[in-house]
Amino acid sequence: MNVVVLVSGGLDSTVTGAIAKKEGHSLFLLTVQYGQRHDVEVDCAQKVAAWLHPVDHQFIHLDLGGLGGSALTTNWAVPKNRSVADRQTEIPTTYVPARNTIFLSLALAYAETLSASSIYIGANIRDYSGYPDCRPEFLNVFRELAKLGTKRGVEGHTIDICAPLLSMTKAEIIQKGLSLGVPFHLTHSCYDPNEAGKSCGTCDSCLIRLEGFRDAGIEDPIPYQQ
Amino acid sequence: MNVVVLVSGGLDSTVTGAIAKKEGHSLFLLTVQYGQRHDVEVDCAQKVAAWLHPVDHQFIHLDLGGLGGSALTTNWAVPKNRSVADRQTEIPTTYVPARNTIFLSLALAYAETLSASSIYIGANIRDYSGYPDCRPEFLNVFRELAKLGTKRGVEGHTIDICAPLLSMTKAEIIQKGLSLGVPFHLTHSCYDPNEAGKSCGTCDSCLIRLEGFRDAGIEDPIPYQQ
Repeated sequence: MNVVVLVSGGLDSTVTGAIAKKEGHSLFLLTVQYGQRHDVEVDCAQKVAAWLHPVDHQFIHLDLGGLGGSALTTNWAVPKNRSVADRQTEIPTTYVPARNTIFLSLALAYAETLSASSIYIGANIRDYSGYPDCRPEFLNVFRELAKLGTKRGVEGHTIDICAPLLSMTKAEIIQKGLSLGVPFHLTHSCYDPNEAGKSCGTCDSCLIRLEGFRDAGIEDPIPYQQ
Repeated sequence: MNVVVLVSGGLDSTVTGAIAKKEGHSLFLLTVQYGQRHDVEVDCAQKVAAWLHPVDHQFIHLDLGGLGGSALTTNWAVPKNRSVADRQTEIPTTYVPARNTIFLSLALAYAETLSASSIYIGANIRDYSGYPDCRPEFLNVFRELAKLGTKRGVEGHTIDICAPLLSMTKAEIIQKGLSLGVPFHLTHSCYDPNEAGKSCGTCDSCLIRLEGFRDAGIEDPIPYQQ
């Protein structure tokens, strides 16, 4: 079956792509460059894509910076060294308004064009920082939207939203990726890399990644600034 | 109240903006340039915007052409001189996969940033060509998505989706616009204008516009190729 995979160059979306591949699907990758400060992700998406051997890989550029509202698309400071408790209770300033809604909408357009059966997304609720658009209830409503808002849906076809990592811990995601041979050294997670693209090691995304590797008992193969 | 209005430069979205203005809201306009062949719309959106006196007007560029699937974003022929019966029963090739889902997602990001209470969209089911993403059931699910997929929604605020033209005929929309002083001469509807931006007069969108003006007993002030 043709499936669309949202691939950012990050660890979660790479493991998600590997799972879709393992399930025997033909992969059509979609990478959205949305004006994020960690644009180095997009280079990683290209390298990771080569490993996934997709049928096609589309890039969409759109600049959300003008809309503001996030530390990832503006010059707001990225929070550093937040405690686990803070990370689990507060929606941080790195939240990008409606990001997954936008990503899934673009993937939906691509999926409809390809007559694809599913969209794969690396959404995850366990380790993440309370982003509302990573929750199962959000994904359920988007499934409904995919049915009602497309020609294919009206014609009786389903475009499913698959989030295979949804309730896994970061350590479980890493273990899963390891079993599928995911090239973790090609992935990028940091929200605030330096000019050379090196990860900071202290933003939420780096902390969650490092804790995940530690809990999985594996060394993270990417370099950090400190 | 702050509201976001999706403004394309077309007749419906201009009347929608005029209604939101009349209701006393502070307007934040959003125009999406999505690689449509009738890009002249965007020039119209700028002129119409000046008349609406918004607080701000954001433009987002994203090219959906690479995803294919529509006569509006590829080199497929635009259907001409279709009968009313055909227009009311067949979803045409000018359907752009998931377009309103994408537009509403971007508007949702903007609305959340502004703490806006509503998004206004010129969706209409009466005269249009069976586009699935113009139906009330689609808009109802998007309302639900706006609640579940945003930080503001989780905090208990509502971002409503307002489609004041939803069940009006084109003639009724034109009458409404007339009563609000809408500058119809600044609006553009044609899917397939010539290089000078002049409307073809025979695509679905031109036919529906021309029939609307005729039914409303008013002359359409824009020039046509024939």
